[in-house]
Amino acid sequence: MCGIFAVWNAPKAAELTVMGLHVIQHRAIDYAGIVSSDGVNLYRECGKGVARDVFTSDKLNRLHGKSALGHIRYPTVSDDKTLDNIQPIMGIHGNRLIAIAHNGNLTNTEQLEEMIHTKFATSMDTECIPRLLEKHDTGHFERDIISVLVSLRGSFSLGILLPDKLIAIRDKTSNRPLSIGRAGESYFISSETCAFPNVGAEYVQDVEPGTIVTIGPQGIRTTLFAEADEKKCRFEVIYFSHPASVVFGEHAGHVRVRVGRMLEELYPAQEADIVVPIPDSGNLFALGFSKSGRSGKLSGAISRNHYVGRTFIAATQAGRDEEVSKKFIFSSEEIRGKSIVVVDDSLVRGTTLCAVISHLRRLHARAVHVRVGFPPVRHPCRYGVNTREYKELMASSLSVEEIRARIGADSLEFLPLEALKKLSPEPEKFCYACITGDYW
Amino acid sequence: MCGIFAVWNAPKAAELTVMGLHVIQHRAIDYAGIVSSDGVNLYRECGKGVARDVFTSDKLNRLHGKSALGHIRYPTVSDDKTLDNIQPIMGIHGNRLIAIAHNGNLTNTEQLEEMIHTKFATSMDTECIPRLLEKHDTGHFERDIISVLVSLRGSFSLGILLPDKLIAIRDKTSNRPLSIGRAGESYFISSETCAFPNVGAEYVQDVEPGTIVTIGPQGIRTTLFAEADEKKCRFEVIYFSHPASVVFGEHAGHVRVRVGRMLEELYPAQEADIVVPIPDSGNLFALGFSKSGRSGKLSGAISRNHYVGRTFIAATQAGRDEEVSKKFIFSSEEIRGKSIVVVDDSLVRGTTLCAVISHLRRLHARAVHVRVGFPPVRHPCRYGVNTREYKELMASSLSVEEIRARIGADSLEFLPLEALKKLSPEPEKFCYACITGDYW
Amino acid sequence: MCGIFAVWNAPKAAELTVMGLHVIQHRAIDYAGIVSSDGVNLYRECGKGVARDVFTSDKLNRLHGKSALGHIRYPTVSDDKTLDNIQPIMGIHGNRLIAIAHNGNLTNTEQLEEMIHTKFATSMDTECIPRLLEKHDTGHFERDIISVLVSLRGSFSLGILLPDKLIAIRDKTSNRPLSIGRAGESYFISSETCAFPNVGAEYVQDVEPGTIVTIGPQGIRTTLFAEADEKKCRFEVIYFSHPASVVFGEHAGHVRVRVGRMLEELYPAQEADIVVPIPDSGNLFALGFSKSGRSGKLSGAISRNHYVGRTFIAATQAGRDEEVSKKFIFSSEEIRGKSIVVVDDSLVRGTTLCAVISHLRRLHARAVHVRVGFPPVRHPCRYGVNTREYKELMASSLSVEEIRARIGADSLEFLPLEALKKLSPEPEKFCYACITGDYW
Amino acid sequence: MCGIFAVWNAPKAAELTVMGLHVIQHRAIDYAGIVSSDGVNLYRECGKGVARDVFTSDKLNRLHGKSALGHIRYPTVSDDKTLDNIQPIMGIHGNRLIAIAHNGNLTNTEQLEEMIHTKFATSMDTECIPRLLEKHDTGHFERDIISVLVSLRGSFSLGILLPDKLIAIRDKTSNRPLSIGRAGESYFISSETCAFPNVGAEYVQDVEPGTIVTIGPQGIRTTLFAEADEKKCRFEVIYFSHPASVVFGEHAGHVRVRVGRMLEELYPAQEADIVVPIPDSGNLFALGFSKSGRSGKLSGAISRNHYVGRTFIAATQAGRDEEVSKKFIFSSEEIRGKSIVVVDDSLVRGTTLCAVISHLRRLHARAVHVRVGFPPVRHPCRYGVNTREYKELMASSLSVEEIRARIGADSLEFLPLEALKKLSPEPEKFCYACITGDYW
Repeated sequence: MCGIFAVWNAPKAAELTVMGLHVIQHRAIDYAGIVSSDGVNLYRECGKGVARDVFTSDKLNRLHGKSALGHIRYPTVSDDKTLDNIQPIMGIHGNRLIAIAHNGNLTNTEQLEEMIHTKFATSMDTECIPRLLEKHDTGHFERDIISVLVSLRGSFSLGILLPDKLIAIRDKTSNRPLSIGRAGESYFISSETCAFPNVGAEYVQDVEPGTIVTIGPQGIRTTLFAEADEKKCRFEVIYFSHPASVVFGEHAGHVRVRVGRMLEELYPAQEADIVVPIPDSGNLFALGFSKSGRSGKLSGAISRNHYVGRTFIAATQAGRDEEVSKKFIFSSEEIRGKSIVVVDDSLVRGTTLCAVISHLRRLHARAVHVRVGFPPVRHPCRYGVNTREYKELMASSLSVEEIRARIGADSLEFLPLEALKKLSPEPEKFCYACITGDYW
Repeated sequence: MCGIFAVWNAPKAAELTVMGLHVIQHRAIDYAGIVSSDGVNLYRECGKGVARDVFTSDKLNRLHGKSALGHIRYPTVSDDKTLDNIQPIMGIHGNRLIAIAHNGNLTNTEQLEEMIHTKFATSMDTECIPRLLEKHDTGHFERDIISVLVSLRGSFSLGILLPDKLIAIRDKTSNRPLSIGRAGESYFISSETCAFPNVGAEYVQDVEPGTIVTIGPQGIRTTLFAEADEKKCRFEVIYFSHPASVVFGEHAGHVRVRVGRMLEELYPAQEADIVVPIPDSGNLFALGFSKSGRSGKLSGAISRNHYVGRTFIAATQAGRDEEVSKKFIFSSEEIRGKSIVVVDDSLVRGTTLCAVISHLRRLHARAVHVRVGFPPVRHPCRYGVNTREYKELMASSLSVEEIRARIGADSLEFLPLEALKKLSPEPEKFCYACITGDYW
Repeated sequence: MCGIFAVWNAPKAAELTVMGLHVIQHRAIDYAGIVSSDGVNLYRECGKGVARDVFTSDKLNRLHGKSALGHIRYPTVSDDKTLDNIQPIMGIHGNRLIAIAHNGNLTNTEQLEEMIHTKFATSMDTECIPRLLEKHDTGHFERDIISVLVSLRGSFSLGILLPDKLIAIRDKTSNRPLSIGRAGESYFISSETCAFPNVGAEYVQDVEPGTIVTIGPQGIRTTLFAEADEKKCRFEVIYFSHPASVVFGEHAGHVRVRVGRMLEELYPAQEADIVVPIPDSGNLFALGFSKSGRSGKLSGAISRNHYVGRTFIAATQAGRDEEVSKKFIFSSEEIRGKSIVVVDDSLVRGTTLCAVISHLRRLHARAVHVRVGFPPVRHPCRYGVNTREYKELMASSLSVEEIRARIGADSLEFLPLEALKKLSPEPEKFCYACITGDYW
Repeated sequence: MCGIFAVWNAPKAAELTVMGLHVIQHRAIDYAGIVSSDGVNLYRECGKGVARDVFTSDKLNRLHGKSALGHIRYPTVSDDKTLDNIQPIMGIHGNRLIAIAHNGNLTNTEQLEEMIHTKFATSMDTECIPRLLEKHDTGHFERDIISVLVSLRGSFSLGILLPDKLIAIRDKTSNRPLSIGRAGESYFISSETCAFPNVGAEYVQDVEPGTIVTIGPQGIRTTLFAEADEKKCRFEVIYFSHPASVVFGEHAGHVRVRVGRMLEELYPAQEADIVVPIPDSGNLFALGFSKSGRSGKLSGAISRNHYVGRTFIAATQAGRDEEVSKKFIFSSEEIRGKSIVVVDDSLVRGTTLCAVISHLRRLHARAVHVRVGFPPVRHPCRYGVNTREYKELMASSLSVEEIRARIGADSLEFLPLEALKKLSPEPEKFCYACITGDYW
């Protein structure tokens, strides 16, 4: 779970990069890093936290130049205390520094490490790329990076900054998104298209599967390095991307409304009074679900608390869930005596849903029906989404009926895989491994 | 703009108070303070920022006891650098410490200060109350506080903590809200009812106009100190309170949907494609506005960015507004070529709306119509809402047509005052001074 | 181990108080607090650390008024994480706030707490004083405080700030120092006289045993509340006070040089080449010891590193002591092949001395003789000096010969008690309990 | 004003480097940086402040490997807010990272920059070295670095860390010190020998003028790259180095005592009662000055306050100097009525001395004579000591008599240049440019 945003040839490149990372901040909130270029040197700054907090004006002042490559990420290891693992990571090619940012996950790292025979400075799979590049260094970047790319397995969307070039790469499966935007003579790379409006840019194209896009003083050039073999992540459009993004050609917001509508057609809840999304993940699914008017009307009985801050554990008399209490505000008057359809995008660990339902019961809901906009997630993702271990996935060991009993719902329905495929433009070009376990 | 939350007789009282303040955090985000009581001593902690950040576990550990009174507030003076002005403020009565938290605004402070003849430790009008109380100290608290209350003019909802009592007071106008909740033998005071569910409590009653509610080991007792003369703030239900709160007997969320529907009946926008709220303030108004289906359908083309962080100024080529860019995410695909109705709750300074419209134009909206759920705010509030000086109120010097031109909208309509009164249960019991200038 | 510094009637009183506390900072470095008065209100600020770090300009700006009372202290309990225990502590008398700062230790707290019957807000013996004062509150401060003082046992030098008065008190034993200084119409109280020059003041007198000194608009007034029964701490002049202070009438620097000279007369080290103090505690003792020229000449072979900072543990190959390595710099050229007399003021835990000697051996010292300017400390102090528990006092369980062997010295001599008494002006008026165990 | 400390082949190399930098911390306190090597990769950490504060355990944990190169420095520009200018700086040679630390000052940077034709990433003269090295990169480090060194003018003592080598270099003038130490199979480089004992090492040799010392798995190897032309800084032994260091073959502490003695022979102060050093810079000069007993006896009437912290400006009634008040403690009893010789090492800006004398007068000193252990500093240093601009050097525009009048002394004498030369072993091998203006 990572995000990339980069700027080529724009004044205040580092600030624009922060603005871009801020818009895709939902992809990862733990670390942020930016490398900038003034055409000759590279400058690197990074830190722990969200982009707008990490990049103080002090740090921005040190990020000289008109181009910049930014990255946000989750920790690889849960208790990673060092800052070694913040991206972009640095490498050397042709006696010059380069910076690499990676979204995705390599699946043949053991084999790659054997090819390298050197100690690693970080614990990230990404480090294989600069290390291999050093082995293949002939001084000609495009040729050398292709030699490296063909040895990689798994998913990788990459941004690479050289002193005088910005490069975007997507592997042949195009499992992770990566798009290009433009504003006059300035170019932008982003994991999601929703970041372009806020930096004044317009969406131009996606980086095509198996291609390298090189942006430099001579303009933009595309090179194919592998035949497309698409396995686009179906979870991106449902859960991970921002609803304002166009992901793999689909508008994420529209898809979610359509899923909500289909869910209601398949599994109506005719005795329900109100349809309540888990905000904000369930909002658009609930909007679609309530469209027909048959299964209750849309309600904001649960709203999201916009103020964050440290969490502490209050062992209070009522045994309330502190996390839910921190994140949500409940309207007792809306809930009391009602039959409620709770709608969410997906069910992974199930802890939030469980706590929300128990909260609704305590506030005297008459009945609680649950509708989920994605099939049960039964298998961990190996391609860059942190969907947890098997033991943390509620659906890996429980049937739908057992889940319903565990979370305390009166009824529970998931969008079936067939329905999901029917909603997909070219269903065979997507990855469903987290549903089926069919890894590639 | 302040908020009060208090706990009587519950384990972890200080933590519950933080949970309560967190739910009403939208009322004020600058300072937070809590005074707790263990039955004998009072303990005070405070700081700058939102409640969950101010109250670290260190501070919570020092807030001993089973009762606590919390307060959140805006700075009185814009460049207030001291921490002197954080509430609750301390006073002495009958040789014991007391703590006072105030929501509202006193209008006769000059006259009160003449009665006091002492130097003030803070620059808050609230300090008149403990100072006058010292003058009237006969050792009998209820008698003495009434002697003070009758000399006060303006609006005041008060929470007062004594070592062995918790007291809630509302002036005769009941201009500011104050409610009482209960969970078993524990009692709660809150500026808004939405805070009760998250601490496991249920809403019991409002503090009646001109009464003192005393909560102590003997239970709850109400004393009348002035005849009711209600002037309830009409802005609370529209703008200030959380939609999940019941304010002055009305459910704020329901009122907002009703206002949106009436706005559409009065000023439809039949050529519009989509209805887009300024999130989150305009959400429920837009829901009401789109109900009939005549004036475009509801859309989330503007969404709110949940990640905050420092603001920095990027003087970029496109001259974009950094504040709007920080707060919102725009869906270009939803906006391009559309005729859009932008809906918001109110128009005070007009800066956000202005920047949003220019953003929509840049993203190729075909037309932008604006509908506002409250009449033009033409006069500053003197009763505790920080609606700015005359010069900052866009409607104080401009006609509706001039405002439309200034913000660059194709059409602009406000909810008329008559319609607002028609929606009010007993319209003569409300204050409309910010609309009419009829101060009392 | 505490220090008091107070200012009466001077502009910038709080800043002067910080300057004074800074000069006596050697008495305690863990916490600092100041209460100021503007004649009507009291203002309190405090924090963890040395005075100049705690009192930022923000805090100083909130300490209004021309009088201030400051205190520095060690934690009472070793793992005290709260800030409850910072002094001055607040109390109420005659319906007004007062502030109390205490140097010393009460020995009858159990008995006092029985008289009080209330829960304490802190874990400090000092809190007995405001609590008892509340019991005796007749509105006449001097009368009431005397009623309290006569019930206290142990040692106490007190500073008390009322809105319109500053008060200095010393118990009948005058075990802890407390002095008064003056500059024009401004008065000062200090635990040590060395603080007066830096605030432009001159030393006037000590607070006499068993008296209350009241400083107010009418000038200075002394009241006797108990017959003198002096038990002045002999450790103050040797170890605790700054050498520039006049303590109990003696100039601490001169006393230390005299002790050093007597030590050399009693226990010369005629084969020694150089006399090396443990800096800075041993400096003046070594100066005296080297005066005769018989037992080596004065050398700065060990110097003190003025740069501080965090300590970390380096388990390095040489097994060096990190603490000594952090604090001291050694001149190998001065040490190699020499017979050295190491001089220090006292031996309490013995850890530093032990590590220093092993360091000298490693740098090829030929012989190491140790001379100590105070008799073996065999018993913990009960009167306010944190000389540790019995088990931490090296001399409580070991003979001089055993200590010599333990620290690895070639010879070891302490100043005998008789010699110490011979150097004292009126030896029967001093406390020697830490040497003899004769507690009073 | 910088310092270098490096470790080759020792466990906990980074911690040992912090211990070494801590001992030479007097050379510079503003920034600290360390680069470590694990034989393959380099790791860099740096920050603002003293070494022990900068290198938290987090940072130390990221400095992997058994070799490390550390540097402490003053800012080049007075208002340098970036961290760009912290050393060691990184470069690339033979496709591998290298790290360079520099003590001294290059005097032909303009000419060097013309040779380079690239934008610099920092504002440090030191950056010329890696930039030139890139130009000369043939893959053979020793040959390439010599090509660079011969083009440099000015003074430079360098430490260079390669993944598998540690290199120490001193220019032909050997203007700045650089020494080598050893402990078993571990080697150390230090700007001063005083750092060796604290890391368990012994001083082995200085880096000879015009030589490169290479430390690697094969041991230690010396290469001559320029004929010696010594211009050793005379200020190092008097002022800059720690008294425990052996600088250019002389023990700094012994030299200072000898200077003090000669100063007294030349300019006795026979009517003086006491000799008072400005601590700690004047301590050993005063010890020498007082040896004969003719010109007063040694006294500690001014002592240094070991507690630091923020400086704030107190515009108090007495107009006292806050800086002096913060740094020193005065013994009124020692000063009152006395004729005093104040001894210091040098007079540069004269501000401290001026404030100290006015302080002594206020404390009723009868007379104040000043003796300074170095000739008047009339010219700025161009070789790495930050002795300020001409306008800040008190002696650049004033005669000795005018200085005496300005600082308010009864008499003032400096060590004459001839006397200084007489005390120097080979006087023609030293630089006296700051005294004479004879730059080279």
